[in-house]
Amino acid sequence: MAPVIFITGGGRSGKSRLAERISGGFGAPLGYLATGTAGDGEMAERIARHRQRRGDDWTTIEEPLDLAGVLRENDGRFSAILVDCVTLWLTNLLLACDDPARCVARVKELTSLFPQLTTPLVLVSNEVGMGIVPENRLARQFRDLAGEANEMIAAAAGEVYVTFSGLPLRLK
Amino acid sequence: MAPVIFITGGGRSGKSRLAERISGGFGAPLGYLATGTAGDGEMAERIARHRQRRGDDWTTIEEPLDLAGVLRENDGRFSAILVDCVTLWLTNLLLACDDPARCVARVKELTSLFPQLTTPLVLVSNEVGMGIVPENRLARQFRDLAGEANEMIAAAAGEVYVTFSGLPLRLK
Amino acid sequence: MAPVIFITGGGRSGKSRLAERISGGFGAPLGYLATGTAGDGEMAERIARHRQRRGDDWTTIEEPLDLAGVLRENDGRFSAILVDCVTLWLTNLLLACDDPARCVARVKELTSLFPQLTTPLVLVSNEVGMGIVPENRLARQFRDLAGEANEMIAAAAGEVYVTFSGLPLRLK
Repeated sequence: MAPVIFITGGGRSGKSRLAERISGGFGAPLGYLATGTAGDGEMAERIARHRQRRGDDWTTIEEPLDLAGVLRENDGRFSAILVDCVTLWLTNLLLACDDPARCVARVKELTSLFPQLTTPLVLVSNEVGMGIVPENRLARQFRDLAGEANEMIAAAAGEVYVTFSGLPLRLK
Repeated sequence: MAPVIFITGGGRSGKSRLAERISGGFGAPLGYLATGTAGDGEMAERIARHRQRRGDDWTTIEEPLDLAGVLRENDGRFSAILVDCVTLWLTNLLLACDDPARCVARVKELTSLFPQLTTPLVLVSNEVGMGIVPENRLARQFRDLAGEANEMIAAAAGEVYVTFSGLPLRLK
Repeated sequence: MAPVIFITGGGRSGKSRLAERISGGFGAPLGYLATGTAGDGEMAERIARHRQRRGDDWTTIEEPLDLAGVLRENDGRFSAILVDCVTLWLTNLLLACDDPARCVARVKELTSLFPQLTTPLVLVSNEVGMGIVPENRLARQFRDLAGEANEMIAAAAGEVYVTFSGLPLRLK
């Protein structure tokens, strides 16, 4: 099993930068699997800024839903693949199917794939459960789903970090 | 003084599972003090799922308000008691009295009881202060109360853990 | 370069108390740079309570906007200066200029000052990015700004801590 490294943390806590540094340690060529879609101005701007920061060693693949399928297809093509991020992928899944149980099944499909991969994988996710419980039912569902997915992926990964203010703590 | 172990973390961060594992280490019979009440469908479902996961070594006691009283009454009856969770207890107290200062007094009553207990105690709580400050005044009051209570209990406990993505970090 | 110590954590997680203890270790006289203004009842009460807790070794300076200017002016006047807190300062800046990029420039001005200071500096900040992404655009901007500022300050500081339930973890 190739290394699977999971990086979680709050919004703007330096997760992506750490993930890029760790992925870069595996050498070029590097794959960047972007789960966010440039749907609105804010996101388009952030995607463009991140892409510029990464530079030429990286090939970007955009896939909002079929994470496992794209990882399977691209296995062996890069020195490492960085998935940024799991939380946006879950958002896309939940909006597409409106059924948390089916989303959990897709996370299970992803973690079941880990032992078959030959390319090192770095996954970025968000901690979203440390604020006040949201009043909105969909937000609560998403918060629970994100927490459960993080727990499943962290359990299946070989290395896990949480970042605060740009600095990582190793959890596993 | 019997061991007092405090476990905090975000929603769905694996706190309850860790608490069950730690409590289980003290051997059967185990007491589970549930502070949540099955008021609505979401909560009833979660309670049923947790109860099924715990299995037959556990006796469930439901008490939304008088935590100290129930712990005093049940001292010596189990190998360990798990309180899940402090945050719901605080919610219940604040809804019942609408006075944060009186809630803090109840937390003090709880921590003053710790040195008298002969049964190991495992308490689960939530970190709710790491999101944006809520606009709603009651939510802000609750956030402050929950933070203060966590600090008081952590100060009085012998072991403290915070969980992220199902993985614990030891704080004390 | 005098020591620069950065302490982050959720609301009511014991950051200020830790910061006061660390500052106190440098001996009297101590400067307390308060960025919050007693605009409303809640804040006025909190400020009064904190001031009472600190006691006579402390001189309070109130400055909502020009943090770097006040630190430059007061350099050499105290054994240590505690800034409480960065997050309120950012709130004030963002409300005053409505332009995140200009706020980031002010944070850069602050961190550029660090190497010139001869007085030890302790800065308190909030982690606000571990809850659900807020629906409100201004709240999202603020969350991003606060995360970026924390990362910049943590990178420039010599020691960094994050607190949970009143207990610190050292990040750097």
